[in-house]
Amino acid sequence: MRFTSEQRLDDGVLEREFTLGEIPGILWTPESASAPVPLILLGHPGGLHRMYPRLAARARHSVADGFAAATIELPGGGDRPRSAVAEEARVDLHRALEAGEPVDDDIVDRLVLPLVEKAVPEWQALLNALLPLPEIGGQVGYAGGVIAIGLRLAVVEPRISAALLFAGSFVPRTMFEEARQVAIPLLVLLQWDDEGNDRQLALDLFDAFGSEEKTLHANTGGHTGVPQFEGDEVNRFFARHLK
Amino acid sequence: MRFTSEQRLDDGVLEREFTLGEIPGILWTPESASAPVPLILLGHPGGLHRMYPRLAARARHSVADGFAAATIELPGGGDRPRSAVAEEARVDLHRALEAGEPVDDDIVDRLVLPLVEKAVPEWQALLNALLPLPEIGGQVGYAGGVIAIGLRLAVVEPRISAALLFAGSFVPRTMFEEARQVAIPLLVLLQWDDEGNDRQLALDLFDAFGSEEKTLHANTGGHTGVPQFEGDEVNRFFARHLK
Repeated sequence: MRFTSEQRLDDGVLEREFTLGEIPGILWTPESASAPVPLILLGHPGGLHRMYPRLAARARHSVADGFAAATIELPGGGDRPRSAVAEEARVDLHRALEAGEPVDDDIVDRLVLPLVEKAVPEWQALLNALLPLPEIGGQVGYAGGVIAIGLRLAVVEPRISAALLFAGSFVPRTMFEEARQVAIPLLVLLQWDDEGNDRQLALDLFDAFGSEEKTLHANTGGHTGVPQFEGDEVNRFFARHLK
Repeated sequence: MRFTSEQRLDDGVLEREFTLGEIPGILWTPESASAPVPLILLGHPGGLHRMYPRLAARARHSVADGFAAATIELPGGGDRPRSAVAEEARVDLHRALEAGEPVDDDIVDRLVLPLVEKAVPEWQALLNALLPLPEIGGQVGYAGGVIAIGLRLAVVEPRISAALLFAGSFVPRTMFEEARQVAIPLLVLLQWDDEGNDRQLALDLFDAFGSEEKTLHANTGGHTGVPQFEGDEVNRFFARHLK
């Protein structure tokens, strides 16, 4: 991992861009902390530049409550090379959505499974790179979408102790079985009126998770309408499990 | 309203029993507060004496966070006269549950509708009695079961500004239409593995509420297994809306 820029934000947050091999990423830490702080990995749908305002807001809120936060670009996101399979699946997806047709399981599999296979080892490599830093210590949490990436990480990565997942439709059917193997505490956020989200599928997935402690927060509003107060709830959830 | 006993609890809470006409009740207030505090009405399934430990714990938590709390016995609960219709419905309900049969809408109607009709004006009379007290001021919230009583109060009682409802199965079908008229902020708690609760019905009811701000918190566990941390969430919900 190589830091490529460093910026002091006005609220005592140190923001550093880095590259992890070919993959760009951002790390946010408290400018001054008396002890190492737990790390929250910020998941997103891809496109770091486009997502930056929302990611930075979430990161600054995390740092204000005593965490570090980090994210990396997804495979095929931003300037990273596209996968032909995923691009074709995306075309089929948009065609189905525009025609108002149901989205075939096959499209979801082609879109999501290769992404999960490729992204998960990258997030694990990110942990390898970040955890030795002296300013980071304690437990690790994963927060955000892509829910299928968070789900797989929760199963295969023992260094992740708790996860906040944004409910989204595109979870391959085969991953419902995998959800039963998830054992860490979960908080699932569901936007009840999300046009692009299959509510019943989100509820079925919540039901499938094997975790002894799992909580669903459903709120009125569309995809990007998560209420402000859920940001505080998320930090309290991670404080309970990572500190 | 006539106070019948007064007790100072060790955490600075003043607990006063009272009668409102024939109806027994309990009021919890801070022993010393510099200003009037908002009131939370504590709903319950009936049987004040049996429910006392849980009600008192909820009340003390509310008072610790700057609220007053009050409750009254339900019609047919404790020593209050039973209704023949409700008793008959209760026998039919237990017969259905023991036989593992679905509970007829007719049983739910006979059990719940007369209870709602009788209880709601009593809770309104409680408000008439409590709101003039100098130690109580500001907005009022309703918290708890019976969900059908909370639902009706939310529709007909303009002095109630926010409600926390415990999801329970026994909501008459006719009250789903009424749910669409609810406009105040709602927090609905659902125990995901509640044996005695129809999960789909609870989700349908959440969907039916007309409130612009409504939040569902679903947690793993059975009927009485609401996690400790939800107590804090409830107080924060009321702090947002009553203070």
